[in-house]
Amino acid sequence: MADDDALFRKGMPIRREVLGPDYVDASMARADEFMMSFQRATTTWAWGWAWGDPTLDRKTRSLMNLAMLTALNRAPEIKLHVKGALNNGVTVEEIRPPYCTRQPYCGIPAGLDAFRAAHEVLVSEGALGKPKT
Amino acid sequence: MADDDALFRKGMPIRREVLGPDYVDASMARADEFMMSFQRATTTWAWGWAWGDPTLDRKTRSLMNLAMLTALNRAPEIKLHVKGALNNGVTVEEIRPPYCTRQPYCGIPAGLDAFRAAHEVLVSEGALGKPKT
Amino acid sequence: MADDDALFRKGMPIRREVLGPDYVDASMARADEFMMSFQRATTTWAWGWAWGDPTLDRKTRSLMNLAMLTALNRAPEIKLHVKGALNNGVTVEEIRPPYCTRQPYCGIPAGLDAFRAAHEVLVSEGALGKPKT
Amino acid sequence: MADDDALFRKGMPIRREVLGPDYVDASMARADEFMMSFQRATTTWAWGWAWGDPTLDRKTRSLMNLAMLTALNRAPEIKLHVKGALNNGVTVEEIRPPYCTRQPYCGIPAGLDAFRAAHEVLVSEGALGKPKT
Amino acid sequence: MADDDALFRKGMPIRREVLGPDYVDASMARADEFMMSFQRATTTWAWGWAWGDPTLDRKTRSLMNLAMLTALNRAPEIKLHVKGALNNGVTVEEIRPPYCTRQPYCGIPAGLDAFRAAHEVLVSEGALGKPKT
Amino acid sequence: MADDDALFRKGMPIRREVLGPDYVDASMARADEFMMSFQRATTTWAWGWAWGDPTLDRKTRSLMNLAMLTALNRAPEIKLHVKGALNNGVTVEEIRPPYCTRQPYCGIPAGLDAFRAAHEVLVSEGALGKPKT
Repeated sequence: MADDDALFRKGMPIRREVLGPDYVDASMARADEFMMSFQRATTTWAWGWAWGDPTLDRKTRSLMNLAMLTALNRAPEIKLHVKGALNNGVTVEEIRPPYCTRQPYCGIPAGLDAFRAAHEVLVSEGALGKPKT
Repeated sequence: MADDDALFRKGMPIRREVLGPDYVDASMARADEFMMSFQRATTTWAWGWAWGDPTLDRKTRSLMNLAMLTALNRAPEIKLHVKGALNNGVTVEEIRPPYCTRQPYCGIPAGLDAFRAAHEVLVSEGALGKPKT
Repeated sequence: MADDDALFRKGMPIRREVLGPDYVDASMARADEFMMSFQRATTTWAWGWAWGDPTLDRKTRSLMNLAMLTALNRAPEIKLHVKGALNNGVTVEEIRPPYCTRQPYCGIPAGLDAFRAAHEVLVSEGALGKPKT
Repeated sequence: MADDDALFRKGMPIRREVLGPDYVDASMARADEFMMSFQRATTTWAWGWAWGDPTLDRKTRSLMNLAMLTALNRAPEIKLHVKGALNNGVTVEEIRPPYCTRQPYCGIPAGLDAFRAAHEVLVSEGALGKPKT
Repeated sequence: MADDDALFRKGMPIRREVLGPDYVDASMARADEFMMSFQRATTTWAWGWAWGDPTLDRKTRSLMNLAMLTALNRAPEIKLHVKGALNNGVTVEEIRPPYCTRQPYCGIPAGLDAFRAAHEVLVSEGALGKPKT
Repeated sequence: MADDDALFRKGMPIRREVLGPDYVDASMARADEFMMSFQRATTTWAWGWAWGDPTLDRKTRSLMNLAMLTALNRAPEIKLHVKGALNNGVTVEEIRPPYCTRQPYCGIPAGLDAFRAAHEVLVSEGALGKPKT
């Protein structure tokens, strides 16, 4: 048994609930040995260890994560966590204003990238109307 | 009347409530013309524009800010916002676990700097016992 | 009247002059309510407040912005501001050498990303010949 | 003779050995005057000056570079240096575990971007099997 | 038994060997409940999980870490890992040239901060002569 | 003769003119062999190679550097280049407004750190009145 098995087993159901079981199961199924190292790390550490802590509710965690990821300049993770935020009950009305908030702290260019990443997911998830063309 | 007067006047009472009137008044009184540019910018944009939006409660905003500032690597702002978080009703129990959370996302060295900055403020504000020596 | 109306109205003509009226008008027309939050923020704060300050000429501002955006690792904003620099009278000869300059300060990988983003815009704007194939 | 000629001439054969002569020669041939500024900078400074120092072997340098580039959030350079690492004799088994290592230091989102960039190159270079579909 | 106990117990002896038992034991003894969250995180993840992987030797890991931390702009961690590098058998001659290497990738200002942090530790550890005054 | 001698000899007088001969000579005299690697790198690359390019005047370069360094989060370099900006004929009136400009792009926390670093130098150089106490 690997040393991180307990946290991996704790993290997997949380990850499936927040990001959606279809997405997570497909990521695991598609992963070859190289990418499985990442799957294992994120499930164990981000989901088992960090999200597994019960002090804060998941909705607050989602809002904190989106704030943090805007600063970190990592669009692929932003997209995952916008979807997770919707699953955790965050409304579009609650996502949008803090996006604005982040701009004075992270800067306008960070806001542009974060807005675009969020918008793409909100449209594809049906949480916004179709984009105007 | 400057173009940003409305937001400045909206931001100042929010800033004084969150960071404490003594701290803010002293910062304003001490500022020469050069530093007043910064005082004006932060009051207008961070406090009038971003914190002035009523959608999210201040406690959630404080937790989001601490998450974001850990990623941004800016210890002086972390210290201000740990104090603000206490003023907004965030408990030490609620500050500590999300600090842990940030480490998988921002990395351990970001965690070290953020933990130390927070700890210094929590001790000086009497929210933790005296440090062991 | 929103608190930021004066700055929004001040920023819009500056933004249209620097980035081009067609680009800005299309961005505004295409924006749904979610993206309009970003449009409003950037017009008000970056254009009304920052670019609205008359101390430095626009050409110097463009060169400063390109330097800053290279460090911030934000290619979509670099592309906008290369186009803005051309509109502000910056020549290719003036864009290229400071690009080199940024590499000792920001690092070679930042230089690679910035060079590529700038090159793409300079070619599409007709400021460089067609790329060799 | 330009002031940096000696380092450029020292760097070019090292760059060709590490990144592959076909790739480097094609980059040089394709570069117009604008992009040649970057070609010259990277050959002179990264390859002639930094890689030209003989103290550490190239394999160790490749591993250091991949660690550094994960932190710098620069996927295009990561892809180049994964290819370079293979040319310098680093095995997939040696690339993968330090990728994991970087996640506690740089964070999971940095890990995700770095894993994906590396995976793409390892597949296209034939160092991993075809991705599952 | 906490879910991360196995990794914590695996990480502690590695951490004590690399950073020195006196330093680590003092950090643990001094930590109050708040800082113990950080102690636990770093021991578990950085040391048990990342350094616990046996694929690369510790000397190579030290060199990779110093490269990564220069990019991350985290001087307190740089100081710890310069000390760790000496404990892992890295010589001053091997530390210095890769420092130079990092400058083309991370930029000169990152180099300045990293050089100063390393120099401070190398002097206090007696690995360099006394600074000139 | 080292490969970078030409650039080193070209950079040294520029560096002395911009940062002041006393400061530069003292840095060189104080440097032991370890720190001399940094002295050599910065003189060669930042000063000989980048500042040695004659296309842009030094005043514009100073303003670009201050913009870039705010984004890079490197206070020690900001202090050097505020002093250099004064030597290059930039006035306090020209330093202050672009500082404001940087805040929408880099964020308020970056602005706070940059303002403080600049203020410290402007006071010690006598370019501002004494700070209020």
